[in-house]
Amino acid sequence: MSTDATPAEVPLLDHHCHGVTTGELDRAAFESLITESDWDAPEGTTHFDTQVGFAIRRHCAPVLGLEPFATAEEYLARRRELGGAEVSRRLLRATGISDYFIEIGHRADEILEPAEMADAGAARAFEIVRLERLAEELVIDGIRPDEFRSAYARLLDERLRRAIGVKSIAAYRIGLDFEPGRPTTDEVDVAVARWVRGADGTSPLDGDVRLDDPVIIRHLLWAAVDRACAIQFHIGYGDADVDLHRCNPLLLTEFLRQTRASGARVMLLHCYPFHREAGYLAQVFPHVYFDVGLAINYTGSRSDEIIAETLELAPFHKILFSSDAFGAAELYHLGALLFRRGLQRALDTFSERDGWPAGERSRVTELIAWRNARRAYRLDDALFAVTTGSIGADGRSIPDGRSGSLAQETS
Amino acid sequence: MSTDATPAEVPLLDHHCHGVTTGELDRAAFESLITESDWDAPEGTTHFDTQVGFAIRRHCAPVLGLEPFATAEEYLARRRELGGAEVSRRLLRATGISDYFIEIGHRADEILEPAEMADAGAARAFEIVRLERLAEELVIDGIRPDEFRSAYARLLDERLRRAIGVKSIAAYRIGLDFEPGRPTTDEVDVAVARWVRGADGTSPLDGDVRLDDPVIIRHLLWAAVDRACAIQFHIGYGDADVDLHRCNPLLLTEFLRQTRASGARVMLLHCYPFHREAGYLAQVFPHVYFDVGLAINYTGSRSDEIIAETLELAPFHKILFSSDAFGAAELYHLGALLFRRGLQRALDTFSERDGWPAGERSRVTELIAWRNARRAYRLDDALFAVTTGSIGADGRSIPDGRSGSLAQETS
Amino acid sequence: MSTDATPAEVPLLDHHCHGVTTGELDRAAFESLITESDWDAPEGTTHFDTQVGFAIRRHCAPVLGLEPFATAEEYLARRRELGGAEVSRRLLRATGISDYFIEIGHRADEILEPAEMADAGAARAFEIVRLERLAEELVIDGIRPDEFRSAYARLLDERLRRAIGVKSIAAYRIGLDFEPGRPTTDEVDVAVARWVRGADGTSPLDGDVRLDDPVIIRHLLWAAVDRACAIQFHIGYGDADVDLHRCNPLLLTEFLRQTRASGARVMLLHCYPFHREAGYLAQVFPHVYFDVGLAINYTGSRSDEIIAETLELAPFHKILFSSDAFGAAELYHLGALLFRRGLQRALDTFSERDGWPAGERSRVTELIAWRNARRAYRLDDALFAVTTGSIGADGRSIPDGRSGSLAQETS
Repeated sequence: MSTDATPAEVPLLDHHCHGVTTGELDRAAFESLITESDWDAPEGTTHFDTQVGFAIRRHCAPVLGLEPFATAEEYLARRRELGGAEVSRRLLRATGISDYFIEIGHRADEILEPAEMADAGAARAFEIVRLERLAEELVIDGIRPDEFRSAYARLLDERLRRAIGVKSIAAYRIGLDFEPGRPTTDEVDVAVARWVRGADGTSPLDGDVRLDDPVIIRHLLWAAVDRACAIQFHIGYGDADVDLHRCNPLLLTEFLRQTRASGARVMLLHCYPFHREAGYLAQVFPHVYFDVGLAINYTGSRSDEIIAETLELAPFHKILFSSDAFGAAELYHLGALLFRRGLQRALDTFSERDGWPAGERSRVTELIAWRNARRAYRLDDALFAVTTGSIGADGRSIPDGRSGSLAQETS
Repeated sequence: MSTDATPAEVPLLDHHCHGVTTGELDRAAFESLITESDWDAPEGTTHFDTQVGFAIRRHCAPVLGLEPFATAEEYLARRRELGGAEVSRRLLRATGISDYFIEIGHRADEILEPAEMADAGAARAFEIVRLERLAEELVIDGIRPDEFRSAYARLLDERLRRAIGVKSIAAYRIGLDFEPGRPTTDEVDVAVARWVRGADGTSPLDGDVRLDDPVIIRHLLWAAVDRACAIQFHIGYGDADVDLHRCNPLLLTEFLRQTRASGARVMLLHCYPFHREAGYLAQVFPHVYFDVGLAINYTGSRSDEIIAETLELAPFHKILFSSDAFGAAELYHLGALLFRRGLQRALDTFSERDGWPAGERSRVTELIAWRNARRAYRLDDALFAVTTGSIGADGRSIPDGRSGSLAQETS
Repeated sequence: MSTDATPAEVPLLDHHCHGVTTGELDRAAFESLITESDWDAPEGTTHFDTQVGFAIRRHCAPVLGLEPFATAEEYLARRRELGGAEVSRRLLRATGISDYFIEIGHRADEILEPAEMADAGAARAFEIVRLERLAEELVIDGIRPDEFRSAYARLLDERLRRAIGVKSIAAYRIGLDFEPGRPTTDEVDVAVARWVRGADGTSPLDGDVRLDDPVIIRHLLWAAVDRACAIQFHIGYGDADVDLHRCNPLLLTEFLRQTRASGARVMLLHCYPFHREAGYLAQVFPHVYFDVGLAINYTGSRSDEIIAETLELAPFHKILFSSDAFGAAELYHLGALLFRRGLQRALDTFSERDGWPAGERSRVTELIAWRNARRAYRLDDALFAVTTGSIGADGRSIPDGRSGSLAQETS
């Protein structure tokens, strides 16, 4: 371990993000990527008049060769001038992110694949599988209800040969106040039959397969528990489709009790405004980890406080970094920049108050920046990664893998 | 727009307050106005030993010609010496509030009418109608159940010719976890019949008309939605009659989804301690606005932090100013003073961290101080106001209206 | 009242703590005492890598003669070298705690009795009775169901001749969303019969008597209300047995309404992360008090913010100090040290912002440090205390009582 790792310089492992887009974005398209709202800003207003909008003008504009606080118009004009690929390359490569854990399966046609992300960011990329999407794929492919459980088991096993974790959006589909226990196979079979046939007895079409049956989603979760996976849960802040009051991580308490000894690890994503609740769970449950991704880039000048609030009850070995960026390269950039700054300021404050030694600051920095995720995801046991670039999260050189290929993890 | 508006000098539009009292207040009466408790402080203690009590002694005492931190006894003696009318005039006129949006219908006999408020404060005054009170008035006036819906529609339309918005206290009466959808006319008729006749088949008296039927309250809300009103909701902090855990604004999520395209705008009032939740709703729903009134004057020396916490997820064009003052002129004064200070400190912090330019600080200041409310309440479309004084929220002179008269909005 | 009491020097009344252990602790035993988790830290990690762990190394190490930030190994070696009794004596006596209110009845065989605590800490000690344990004792002793109510009444009265308050762990056993009203005697008798006989009709053994029947627990609470007791409630943060989302103090709102005029006082313990909600209840209900014990020592370098957050809506005459320490002497030490520091910093901030005079800072300090608890628990009316030492909470000398004896309260 280096003895003077600082938040400004430490490599970051982004354990939860999506792909970037390299497309050319008009103003409406760009604005839609810098808000969790799925509506335009009201007439006469703009999504740029937000913490994230100001942070883009302040911190991303210079990366594109503009003055800080260039106007939104100037920024977007310059973005078009450079082109989406160049903008993404610049913004991603300035993040110091060495590893991206990328959720696949959400609007995949609009964003880069993991291998392409690795190229664009000069970093390694790993896959996270969205459980609900996996099940939906089977239905789209015409699975017979009585074959669902076995087919799902095979498909999950196959994907886990490549992916280093799974994610559930139970929060969106059924709320986190779901019945925590494992459903019986009979219950699952009945629910699958109902889902696959649809209400009118006909086969559903692609657009109709949205899985929101609690029995089936519980089956997907317990299949992941049985495989001792790293399981990410959407928690807290998200778009207008979520019932935020049903996304409090405390609602998972009984599920966490039942899975404590399973070998599975549970990663609570985002968590704002329930990050203190998440910190409590990370203290009392040995297999619980959490981050405040999304809330960091979206709170901009206020992110220091959010980050400091995560450093209360949670053990330092349970806190993770993520950007939860999707689409706009600016979100990865700000996620990393603001996280580095916020962690630095928190550590500075703790040093002023309590004289934290430089070595301990450095150690805590590395834990949160990448070591915790590496341990929790058992990355050193992984036999493969979609990888490129030459700097591993541990600061040592690693051999370049061919972009998109499966290269052995070397560190 | 002026280019150097600062929180200290900008005119304020107080989009949610009540009337002031100009009566002579003994100690018990004054103490009851500076707490949300409806009980005396325990023996040997005083409601002055609170953040708001200290803030009154610090900031209001000098306005009355006393030293800062005069004792409670000295303060109240001086208050009596000057008289309630003079005290109110001094404290209100020092607020820099140019426009009061005044809720009528709550303990109206104890406080000034909007026109009188305009006089006392040298400002314009506008009316906000309390929906539940409107319905109760019909019942007090002996409405026949089968005439309720049509009479209510006529009464609401009539009041909306004068009022610029409505308020619901559903939080107090039924909790915010009410069924969000529009009730059928049959459901409403049945509920009204039950309410009007009372349980024993007799006509209710004035004291018995308290409306707490969820079907009827939903009818009132949807009538306001149909008229594309600005609808204020009591949220969060209030007195001991409220079940605060049923006042979380997230409980309105489905109602907000259903009303998103209606043209109605929803103003979440107070919100503490759920102001971060309110900020989320203000981001994801295009028609949602919020403030942290009441919590500002009541948290005194801690209000800086509350105000800063509102500047996280919420777009800057969705945050409003209010005092939620009732009765004591001190509460308007502190609401304005502490809001100005807290906003200034937040902006200073953002400038230190991220170099927010003066022009942007000024623009955000004006948005929150008055522009957002003006836009959201469609004040420029209003044909009338109960108005007096000569300074409009836009800083330009406006013609004096006769106090209490309906004068055309000129700016 | 002294006119210059500062948080650094004021005596503290710790209104909620448990006994200390003077046993020799190996690493596993010590680590288990500095977390609310009942599991070991994951392999490769340690419970020392937490705010409380860092605070121990920073602040307790020097009390044991080590440099600040000695390693965990050095700290534990030194602890063994000095011996558990000497370590406890040193750490407790440096707290400046003059009075311990000690809950008895939780793992009593592992920790010191109140009289021994008084000796170890050179302070006075008072007993708090755990209601659920009292009822369980009757069952262990073979009470006949039809005698339960009368026997419980006698036992409670007997214990209250010695104890100065009671505590309920309803939060753990039934959640705070219990039916608030008083159960009928018939309901209680039926529930007791069911509990005592067990499901199979046999008498329960010691290990089986865990009381989690809501009717019986409500009976215990109302018996305490009838006696106008000081009633402590576990709220918020605790170990993994708690459903934290059912420990929000707002869930007690209706119970608080019903008990408002009873003469009972309600002390909300811990409260984190619901301390703002607790502050609201302390404002609107005249008989509600609260603290943020446990969260202070466990948040270490972040405790300043937690303490400041308690100073918002709550009247200054409703806030209490507690450590909620159990077992490890370090937790009392940090509870006191961090509380003093956090209160000082909050008062300094308020003075910078609003010029709080020294006399008022001093007055607020004494209220929170000990005067509020003395008033709320009616300590001056108490005829006895388990006591030792010579410094009372009021700073005057008091006669030594014999350790373990009942000595008259003299101040």
